[in-house]
Amino acid sequence: MTTFLGELIGTGVLMLFGTGVNANVSLKGTYGNNAGWLTIAFGWGLAVFVAVFVSGPISGAHINPAVTIGLATAGKFPWADVPMYLAAQMIGAFIGSGLAFILYRNHFKLTEDPGVRLGVFSTGPAIPRTFDNFLSELIGTFALIFAIFFLVEGDGLGSVSAFPVGFLVFAIGMSLGGTTGYAINPARDLSPRIFHQLFVGKNSNWQYAWIPVFGPIAGAIIAAGLYILLGSPDNSLINP
Amino acid sequence: MTTFLGELIGTGVLMLFGTGVNANVSLKGTYGNNAGWLTIAFGWGLAVFVAVFVSGPISGAHINPAVTIGLATAGKFPWADVPMYLAAQMIGAFIGSGLAFILYRNHFKLTEDPGVRLGVFSTGPAIPRTFDNFLSELIGTFALIFAIFFLVEGDGLGSVSAFPVGFLVFAIGMSLGGTTGYAINPARDLSPRIFHQLFVGKNSNWQYAWIPVFGPIAGAIIAAGLYILLGSPDNSLINP
Amino acid sequence: MTTFLGELIGTGVLMLFGTGVNANVSLKGTYGNNAGWLTIAFGWGLAVFVAVFVSGPISGAHINPAVTIGLATAGKFPWADVPMYLAAQMIGAFIGSGLAFILYRNHFKLTEDPGVRLGVFSTGPAIPRTFDNFLSELIGTFALIFAIFFLVEGDGLGSVSAFPVGFLVFAIGMSLGGTTGYAINPARDLSPRIFHQLFVGKNSNWQYAWIPVFGPIAGAIIAAGLYILLGSPDNSLINP
Amino acid sequence: MTTFLGELIGTGVLMLFGTGVNANVSLKGTYGNNAGWLTIAFGWGLAVFVAVFVSGPISGAHINPAVTIGLATAGKFPWADVPMYLAAQMIGAFIGSGLAFILYRNHFKLTEDPGVRLGVFSTGPAIPRTFDNFLSELIGTFALIFAIFFLVEGDGLGSVSAFPVGFLVFAIGMSLGGTTGYAINPARDLSPRIFHQLFVGKNSNWQYAWIPVFGPIAGAIIAAGLYILLGSPDNSLINP
Repeated sequence: MTTFLGELIGTGVLMLFGTGVNANVSLKGTYGNNAGWLTIAFGWGLAVFVAVFVSGPISGAHINPAVTIGLATAGKFPWADVPMYLAAQMIGAFIGSGLAFILYRNHFKLTEDPGVRLGVFSTGPAIPRTFDNFLSELIGTFALIFAIFFLVEGDGLGSVSAFPVGFLVFAIGMSLGGTTGYAINPARDLSPRIFHQLFVGKNSNWQYAWIPVFGPIAGAIIAAGLYILLGSPDNSLINP
Repeated sequence: MTTFLGELIGTGVLMLFGTGVNANVSLKGTYGNNAGWLTIAFGWGLAVFVAVFVSGPISGAHINPAVTIGLATAGKFPWADVPMYLAAQMIGAFIGSGLAFILYRNHFKLTEDPGVRLGVFSTGPAIPRTFDNFLSELIGTFALIFAIFFLVEGDGLGSVSAFPVGFLVFAIGMSLGGTTGYAINPARDLSPRIFHQLFVGKNSNWQYAWIPVFGPIAGAIIAAGLYILLGSPDNSLINP
Repeated sequence: MTTFLGELIGTGVLMLFGTGVNANVSLKGTYGNNAGWLTIAFGWGLAVFVAVFVSGPISGAHINPAVTIGLATAGKFPWADVPMYLAAQMIGAFIGSGLAFILYRNHFKLTEDPGVRLGVFSTGPAIPRTFDNFLSELIGTFALIFAIFFLVEGDGLGSVSAFPVGFLVFAIGMSLGGTTGYAINPARDLSPRIFHQLFVGKNSNWQYAWIPVFGPIAGAIIAAGLYILLGSPDNSLINP
Repeated sequence: MTTFLGELIGTGVLMLFGTGVNANVSLKGTYGNNAGWLTIAFGWGLAVFVAVFVSGPISGAHINPAVTIGLATAGKFPWADVPMYLAAQMIGAFIGSGLAFILYRNHFKLTEDPGVRLGVFSTGPAIPRTFDNFLSELIGTFALIFAIFFLVEGDGLGSVSAFPVGFLVFAIGMSLGGTTGYAINPARDLSPRIFHQLFVGKNSNWQYAWIPVFGPIAGAIIAAGLYILLGSPDNSLINP
C-alpha cells in the first residue's frame, strides 16, 4: 500500500506539473503562452525533480513504467511488484493530468485547435513515420534508463539528491525530444490520452498511442540488456 | 524577536527580488524588458532561493503565511507563533516590494498602463472567473505545501540546501502559474497591493484581492489535511 | 602572494566569462547575438560560479572590492589586506576583459555602435539620473553583500559549494539589474572601462564611471552596518 | 578495457546529447527549432553533466582528448594511457553523433542547407579567420582545462558531483562560444565530421577541421603549463 501510494503520488505530481507546463505554453491566453521549447524541457525536468523528491523516499520514485520494467529486467526490482507499480503510475498520471486540465480549463475553452488540445496531454510526432517514431521513443528511453543505472545517490543530501534525475530528463528533452516530443514513459502518455478521450476531445490519435507505450518499453529492455552485458557493478567490464 | 526579524528579512528579500524581476520584465526601458515567462518563473525561483538561505537558519524561512498555516495545521509549528510570523511576513513583503519600487521608479514613470504597473506588485487573473481563479490559487498552493512536507533537508549542505525549495517554486511558476500568476502566498500579494494603493496607482483591483489570500490558505489547509490523512512519517501509509 | 594570485585569477576568470557573455549577446555576427537578458544574467551567474570555485580555496574568492570592503567593515577580513586584494581584483579584471576582447575582436570590427562596444565592457544606465543610478548600484550591492553574510558553506561539497553565490548573482541580475546593468562590483566596471579607453573606443563615458565604483562601496558598507546592528552570529538578534 | 569502455560510453553519451540538441535547434520541423543560443549552451552543459555522471566512476570522465592531454601534461594522468583514451573518445563520439543522426534523420531530409546540416555535427567559425579562430579554440579550451585543475570533488555527493563540470561547459558556451561554436574538444569535432563526410554530406569543410583539433590541444597544454608554473597544490604559489 505504501509503495503503491508513493508511485501514485509521484506520478500524479509529475503529470500535474508536466501537463501544466504544456498547457501554460500551448494554450491561448496563459501567462506562459508561446514561451518556447526551453521552457517545455526545463518545466518537465523540474516536474521530475519535484515528483522524485516527493516519492523517492516512499517508493523509490520510478514514476514511469519503463523505469520499473528496466529495473526488473536488470534484476534490480522484483517482477512480482511490477503490476502494482504500473497500476499506480497509470492512476497517478490520470489524476495529475486531470488536475492540470481543471486548472487550465478556461484556457482550453479559448483554444480551438484540436491538435494543440491533445498535445497538452499526449505526445505526437513532428513527422509521422511509424518506424522512425518508434525508434525515437526507443532511443530516448534507452538513454534515460541506461543513464539511470549509473546514477549514484549521494549520502545525506536529502531532496538535493533529486536534482540529477530531473536534469537528466531536462537533457533528454533538450536533445532527444525534438522528433516525437519524448514521451519516454508509457504512463505519461497513455493515461492523459485516456483522460483526453473521456473529457476533452473527440480524437485522441489512438493509431499513434502504441508507439509511446512500446517504444519506451523496448528502449528500457535494451538498456537493461546492455547494462547486464557490460556487467553489474560488482562483477563487471565497467567496474574499475 | 529573532524569528520575527528572520521572517521579516526573508520575506523582504523575497519581495525585493520578486517585485524586481516583475519590474525588469514588465516596465518600459529596462534591460530585461519583455524577457518572457521563463525569466519571470526562474527569477521568482531564485528569489525564493536567496530568501530561504538568508532566513532559513534564523526562522525556518516560511516567508509565506500559507506555509506557516500549513505547518501549524499539520502540527509542525505552534499556533501561538502564527500571528507573529504572519505580521513579520506582511511587513517584510511591504518593505521589500517598496524597495523594488524605489529601484525601478524611473521606469514606472515611463510605463503608463495601469494594469502593467499593478502587475509588478500583485497578481491578477489571465481570465477573470472567481471560482476558477480561487481554484487555481488553491491548487498551486496545495502543490507547494504538499511538496514542502516531503522536502528533506540534507546534512551539512549549508546554503545548497535552499536550492530544492527555490526550484520547487520555479516549477510551480512554469507549470501552474499560467492562469492567475501564482501568488500562492498571501503576503506576497496583499502587502504589495497595499503599497501600490498607497504610493503607485489609484486602483489596486481590491475586488480580486481576497482570492490570492484565501485561495492559498485553503490550499495549504487541504495539503496539511491530506498529509495527516496519509499519516505522519513516523506512523504512516506513506512511510516505508 | 598566494592570495594576491588567487584574487587576480578569480577576477580574471570572472571578467573573461562576463565580458564574454556580453560580447556574445551584443556584438554583431556572433552565435549568441541577441540572445536576451536571461542569457546575460545566467551567463554572469555562471561566470561567478566558475570564478569562485577556481579562486575560493586560494583567496576566499572575493573577486569584488565591494565584498572585500564589506567583509572588512564587518570585521571579517583584515583592513591591512584590503589594498592588496583590491589591486589584484583591478589587475585581474583588466586582463580578463582584455582576453575576451581579443577573443571577440573580429566581432568588434563588425559592430560600429560605440554604445554597444562600451556596453560589452562597462555598465551604463538605461535612464541616466545620477541619484537614482547611484541608488540602484547601492541597493543591488547591498543585497549582494547582505546575502553573502548569510551564506553558509557546506561540509565537503567541493566545487558544488560555489553554486549558491553564483545563483545569488544570477538572481541579482534577473531582479535588480534592469536599471543600470548591475555592476555591483567596482573592479568589474572600472578596469574594463580603462581597457576600453586604451584599446577599444574614444569615449568611455567617464562622467558615469564613479557611480558603479562608489555606489557598490556604499551598498557594501551599509550592508555590513546592518549586519553588525543585527548582531554577529555569536551574539545576535538574528541568532536563534 | 574498463576505462576504454568508460570513455567510449561517456563520449558517446556526450555526442548523442550534444549532436541531439544541435539537431533539435537547427533542423527544420523539430519541436525545438530555432530555440536559440541559451538552449544550445544549456543543452551541451547538460550533455556533459550526463556524460560525466555516467562515465566518471568508470574512467574519470575525460570525454575529451584535450582533457586527457592536459592532465597528462600536468603529470596527473599517465602518458602511456593517452592513446587508448583518445581512441575510445574518437569511437564514442562517432557512435554518439551517428545515433543522433538516426534519431533526427527525417528532419535532415527536410533541411537542405548544407551549412546547417554540417553545423549539427561539427563547429565552424562565425567569421572565418584562421589565426583568430585558432585562438578562439585555444582560449576556450584553456579556460576549460585551467578551471578543471581547480575543480574539487566533494565527498559522497554521488551524481551531484557531476554538476560543476557540466555548468563549467555551459558557462564556456555562453561566454566564449560565440565566435567558433566552442568545439574545445577534438573528438567532439573530428569524429562527427568524419561521420558527416561518410553518411550525410559531400563537403565536411576539411580545410577548417584542424583548428578545432589543434586549437584545443594547444589550449590544454598552455593551461597545464600555467598550472605547473603556479605550482601543484602541494608545493605552490596558489596553495594557502
